[in-house]
Amino acid sequence: MALNDSLGEFLAAAVDAAKKAGEIIRNGFYKTKHVEHKGQVDLVTETDKACEDLIFNHLKQHFPTHKFIGEETTAANGVTELTDEPTWIVDPLDGTTNFVNGFPFVCVSIGLTIGKIPTVGVVYNPIMDELFTGIHGQGAFLNGKPVKVSEKTELVNSLLATEAGTKRDKATLDATTNRINSLLFKVRSIRMSGSCALNLCGVACGRLDLFYELGFGGPWDAAAGIVIAQEAGGVVFDPSGKDFDITAQRVAASNPLLKDAFVKALQESE
Amino acid sequence: MALNDSLGEFLAAAVDAAKKAGEIIRNGFYKTKHVEHKGQVDLVTETDKACEDLIFNHLKQHFPTHKFIGEETTAANGVTELTDEPTWIVDPLDGTTNFVNGFPFVCVSIGLTIGKIPTVGVVYNPIMDELFTGIHGQGAFLNGKPVKVSEKTELVNSLLATEAGTKRDKATLDATTNRINSLLFKVRSIRMSGSCALNLCGVACGRLDLFYELGFGGPWDAAAGIVIAQEAGGVVFDPSGKDFDITAQRVAASNPLLKDAFVKALQESE
Repeated sequence: MALNDSLGEFLAAAVDAAKKAGEIIRNGFYKTKHVEHKGQVDLVTETDKACEDLIFNHLKQHFPTHKFIGEETTAANGVTELTDEPTWIVDPLDGTTNFVNGFPFVCVSIGLTIGKIPTVGVVYNPIMDELFTGIHGQGAFLNGKPVKVSEKTELVNSLLATEAGTKRDKATLDATTNRINSLLFKVRSIRMSGSCALNLCGVACGRLDLFYELGFGGPWDAAAGIVIAQEAGGVVFDPSGKDFDITAQRVAASNPLLKDAFVKALQESE
Repeated sequence: MALNDSLGEFLAAAVDAAKKAGEIIRNGFYKTKHVEHKGQVDLVTETDKACEDLIFNHLKQHFPTHKFIGEETTAANGVTELTDEPTWIVDPLDGTTNFVNGFPFVCVSIGLTIGKIPTVGVVYNPIMDELFTGIHGQGAFLNGKPVKVSEKTELVNSLLATEAGTKRDKATLDATTNRINSLLFKVRSIRMSGSCALNLCGVACGRLDLFYELGFGGPWDAAAGIVIAQEAGGVVFDPSGKDFDITAQRVAASNPLLKDAFVKALQESE
């Protein structure tokens, strides 16, 4: 009971932080942006940094003993090890390429792990004003209404999401498009929207039936979304079919009815 | 002057029809839908049919001498030849797979050709409440505000949109993913959102820098979007680099600065 109360408090603080960061994102979305490069394809904007500062400051004020892992902080200071302590894992702006282009799939992603288990998740798309929330064992919600994964049972009817990633070496790109080729023979169609967190939420609310991504940025892309997908009745796993590992930068998600066929299709695509 | 007055009237009637059809789409979007199959992957819904009836009836009342070409009518009655007469070319619901899944990229697309030239275009996404409009020679607008294509000059910074299409034979699918593979070495990233009309509008407002699609359903997918893309300062052409042919089910679009490099990249991807 005390833990549940705390989880509710954690969620409320994360929602507050996400909405405030969302306002910064919304303000910047329609303007010309000053953009820095990070690698060939990845982009970091001033908005990204402002949002991470805002979210960390907000959560640190409420929960001074908690640990923090964020995309920007990690880029600056190196990897922080995930411990059993309550740890906020934050992507202040998932979908930076979309943000720079004004493509409306951008979001704030705030997850909390306790004992390394993703326990609270908040994903907020301020452009479409969609707030996805989830607490371990307490369901998943979109703008306060419960959401559920799809009831599809066959790949051939299923809508698959994935991403092309940011790596542009030949081996990675060939593997990426070969995998897509193999899967396209089996599913209805494919979507690429440019946000790992929103893809997980898409599975959660049944907009998407299947999602996988290999080689995304870090645990901040998935920490919140997997709570939401799981709490909506979905299953989250490694694309190999093994257990999901939050440090592995590989994720797959679907409804439970599609999992076996999806894993088989993913294995056959390698 | 008289023609411009008429064009304004044509646009106003098309916007009326699109908004009314959009209401039907919005009402159906969140409900479980009764779905028929048309081919292995394509879907037609009752909504699709209701919207086409509504749009055609509305436009026929206003312009009884005009010709009409629509996706549903063509599916039922065979291809109607495009003549020099004012001809409304309508996709009542572009993005039917998205509609069935609840993925928010769906739209009504209403184009008018006069002398076979796309002259008026209306694309309305009722889920995101985005109304794109264009009249030949009079600019393009999103919810009444002028829109312009991006100013990108290099492919490496550009966001590319395409679609996997609905054909699932090996030759077509291999060509599709080989093309994507080749292009991914040259562009920033790729998006697939499932609506040809909205991809053209995405180029128009600079959310997307490049778009191509081969083998889409028919002229109704592009007739409205190309007016909007062109009036926003974009160029629309055949993926080979030749002139766009509205009957060819092949389209490419970009800002004018990117066209030569994009055509070269498309040619190298074959």
